[in-house]
Amino acid sequence: MSKVDFTSANGQYAATFGDRANLGIPPSKKLIVVTCMDARLNPSDFLGLKDGEAHVIRNAGGLAKDALRSIIISQRLLGTKDIAVIHHTNCGMLTFTDSTLRSKVTEAHSGDARVSEAVKSFEFGAFSELDKSVKDDVSYLKENPLVLKEGNISGWVYEVETGKIREVV
Amino acid sequence: MSKVDFTSANGQYAATFGDRANLGIPPSKKLIVVTCMDARLNPSDFLGLKDGEAHVIRNAGGLAKDALRSIIISQRLLGTKDIAVIHHTNCGMLTFTDSTLRSKVTEAHSGDARVSEAVKSFEFGAFSELDKSVKDDVSYLKENPLVLKEGNISGWVYEVETGKIREVV
Repeated sequence: MSKVDFTSANGQYAATFGDRANLGIPPSKKLIVVTCMDARLNPSDFLGLKDGEAHVIRNAGGLAKDALRSIIISQRLLGTKDIAVIHHTNCGMLTFTDSTLRSKVTEAHSGDARVSEAVKSFEFGAFSELDKSVKDDVSYLKENPLVLKEGNISGWVYEVETGKIREVV
Repeated sequence: MSKVDFTSANGQYAATFGDRANLGIPPSKKLIVVTCMDARLNPSDFLGLKDGEAHVIRNAGGLAKDALRSIIISQRLLGTKDIAVIHHTNCGMLTFTDSTLRSKVTEAHSGDARVSEAVKSFEFGAFSELDKSVKDDVSYLKENPLVLKEGNISGWVYEVETGKIREVV
């Protein structure tokens, strides 16, 4: 089986680690970024965030609902307030539907009842309209009783074609 | 309400975006990294990953169970195989228990039945032993029928005191 070797790159990183060891746990900007796992996104770079400034939650699509557990822990235990939800152009989530993915997984394991059972009611959260997906997620967070009301909740689109972000809501 | 302004930093980023616009959706290293949202962690830096190489999933603790939806989408639709689970020293998840956080949230909204109801059975996934949390997550992924068997699944600890990673399993 293949395996990625991090040794050399991590050794170089640790050699110039410097005073980052002194950073505290609570994010200094009291900010949570929720964005996609996409390999082309480097949120700390495209937002200009330094180490220690913000919690960064990433999942397929940058879905707010999937981030709720993390947001509660971040706000209630580690003092964050504002949330920026950032989806992006050319996202994989725009390329399928939940039912096609369920079929694909089920068919790949034909005969395994555990798989078909596990995937049957799985919510993958595919979406078909990018700006709407951002607005829906911001609304979800604003309406959720478990999310703090005193912070600003904003929604953005990151363009993988240009590196620019655009505020949606 | 406060609001973080990304305009200046993002403008600088986009100005030197270069040929990153040509990167494809599937991660070139066929790798998924699952790690914590902690503000001190910059996984692409401490692992030496370049743009386009790996999906990066981040949540409170870097919990595998919370990443399952994203892992399925990554492996089944975007061709990834290997998974590296990376928890870290001095993690917020080591500082509470699910029941103390449930009580904290409930008390903060005394009188709001929606909150107490919503938080009652919420699994926050706090853990008390760091290495064990990594081993448990790797086992969870290896045993889960929805996770591909042909990739390598490894478990690591990142040290916020030194910037070094250590393989656990």
